[in-house]
Amino acid sequence: MEILAFDFGGTRGRCCLAQPDGSHDDIVGLARSPDEHGAKWLARLLEAGRELNQAPGKRRIVAISFGGPVAPDGRVVSMHVPGWEKVDLAGEMSRAFQLPVCVENDANAGALGEHRFGAGRGTRHMAYFTVSTGIGGGVILDGQLYRGAHGLASEFGHMVMDASPKAPQYAAGKPGVLEALACGPAIERDGRAKLGALGKPVPAGFTSKHVFDAARRGETWAMEVRDAAVAQLARGVAAAICAYDVERVVIGGGVSLAGDALFEPLRRMVTRYLPHYLENKADVVPAALGDNAALLGAVVAAAESGT
Amino acid sequence: MEILAFDFGGTRGRCCLAQPDGSHDDIVGLARSPDEHGAKWLARLLEAGRELNQAPGKRRIVAISFGGPVAPDGRVVSMHVPGWEKVDLAGEMSRAFQLPVCVENDANAGALGEHRFGAGRGTRHMAYFTVSTGIGGGVILDGQLYRGAHGLASEFGHMVMDASPKAPQYAAGKPGVLEALACGPAIERDGRAKLGALGKPVPAGFTSKHVFDAARRGETWAMEVRDAAVAQLARGVAAAICAYDVERVVIGGGVSLAGDALFEPLRRMVTRYLPHYLENKADVVPAALGDNAALLGAVVAAAESGT
Repeated sequence: MEILAFDFGGTRGRCCLAQPDGSHDDIVGLARSPDEHGAKWLARLLEAGRELNQAPGKRRIVAISFGGPVAPDGRVVSMHVPGWEKVDLAGEMSRAFQLPVCVENDANAGALGEHRFGAGRGTRHMAYFTVSTGIGGGVILDGQLYRGAHGLASEFGHMVMDASPKAPQYAAGKPGVLEALACGPAIERDGRAKLGALGKPVPAGFTSKHVFDAARRGETWAMEVRDAAVAQLARGVAAAICAYDVERVVIGGGVSLAGDALFEPLRRMVTRYLPHYLENKADVVPAALGDNAALLGAVVAAAESGT
Repeated sequence: MEILAFDFGGTRGRCCLAQPDGSHDDIVGLARSPDEHGAKWLARLLEAGRELNQAPGKRRIVAISFGGPVAPDGRVVSMHVPGWEKVDLAGEMSRAFQLPVCVENDANAGALGEHRFGAGRGTRHMAYFTVSTGIGGGVILDGQLYRGAHGLASEFGHMVMDASPKAPQYAAGKPGVLEALACGPAIERDGRAKLGALGKPVPAGFTSKHVFDAARRGETWAMEVRDAAVAQLARGVAAAICAYDVERVVIGGGVSLAGDALFEPLRRMVTRYLPHYLENKADVVPAALGDNAALLGAVVAAAESGT
């Protein structure tokens, strides 16, 4: 069996032809333009997949990583993902390729990818946070992806961290959830506000990366913005450790690329927010597979689905 | 096989002789006096158990529910439980009865008891909160108790809800954890403070029960104290639902006896703190076994331990 794998990422799409053990040919990457939602974006990735699928080979199945809730039966629960409200992703892919299709949530897929091939290798219980345009989560318990009763487990980004009336709101989430306080755009928002309040200019193309870079240089405004966001992320990581008692927490997504400027304060603050007897029981480490974790995790999910 | 079961509760101890299916003879209950810690309290429960063990019967094992962390190998991690620092509970029981011993954390045992015989029957994924002199948790995933890497999973009471510098601290926990904001003594503390601030007298023997009773009668001071505590508990319940995507959350412990005065606002606030797509996916219900959940859960844990 071979796996024709797709990752419908927020800003990039990927596809490749992989073996069940995760080995794969070249990964085809496509940049998504901001207006390429739902059906339009699907058509572009389909086209790329059709080319890959022309190569001769064994019986194939289609594996998909999707950036939104996925029901346990592989149906996409996409009502709150802009552009996907009416797209039957699994059905379209199945019709296009005349192959069985297995869809996995991208954070769950990322957890599987990191567990089998990346920073989570060798652990029995592992939690995965992806911190990028949102905050997603996945969890491996007893070596297996745990999905929950409705395929909605490990929604760490939606834990309420700030229940005050003035808590910030982000995308479709409730006010004050972790995602609204510590994802990339939230850090960017808070960085802009801090610079504005200090009467400093906001650099062109300002993102959360500027905040981490300036914090690394020791600039006070940036360290304050970073530490506030990292404190919230640390509370989320500590809550996941309290819930699952994992051996390791793997942090991926664009924000995790900040390296020590993120992980040094994060580890310190996670310890602060854990009960004494859970301190230093779980490692907090960066993801190892970068942008490919979800794509490779989708391969694992499909290979193990019995499809 | 029969099971000689013990529950070392905070204020009461229990023991009984049970069958693996949970059926049991009369439960012997003992009230613990405040100075009866560790070895002293152990001796009293041992004495009661010896009497029960005189009855003729099949091969027996000892099952224990203990109110503190228990390592996955059944060793008691009791360094932070006053009076138990140097007591080898499993070893003492094993020597006393010359029988194999199986120790389970009381909240984990409560979860097992409610899942097999109580309010969690028929669910595949269930979380259990016990709200009494502290807040403990247990979780059943795929029908089995999930213990985590170090036997410390589902420590819901130690999730940080209030990270502000003035957050209250309670027992050995970090400041601002759920337990410090919403357990029985925390509600009592906040009720006393509120009455004091209003210049009202504090009734003799004042406890959290007075707060719920007065809230039920519509007294504003009590509704405010109750709603503040219940909002924190709701955030903890919502965080557990985000983590595990369970079908049901069972709430036990003394505070849960407040009935609708607790559950009506709790259900409303849990919904407020969940992402839209997780609203109303999990029932929030009172425990059914009252004080016996942990004792009967210890029976289940021992029966299924393969000991």
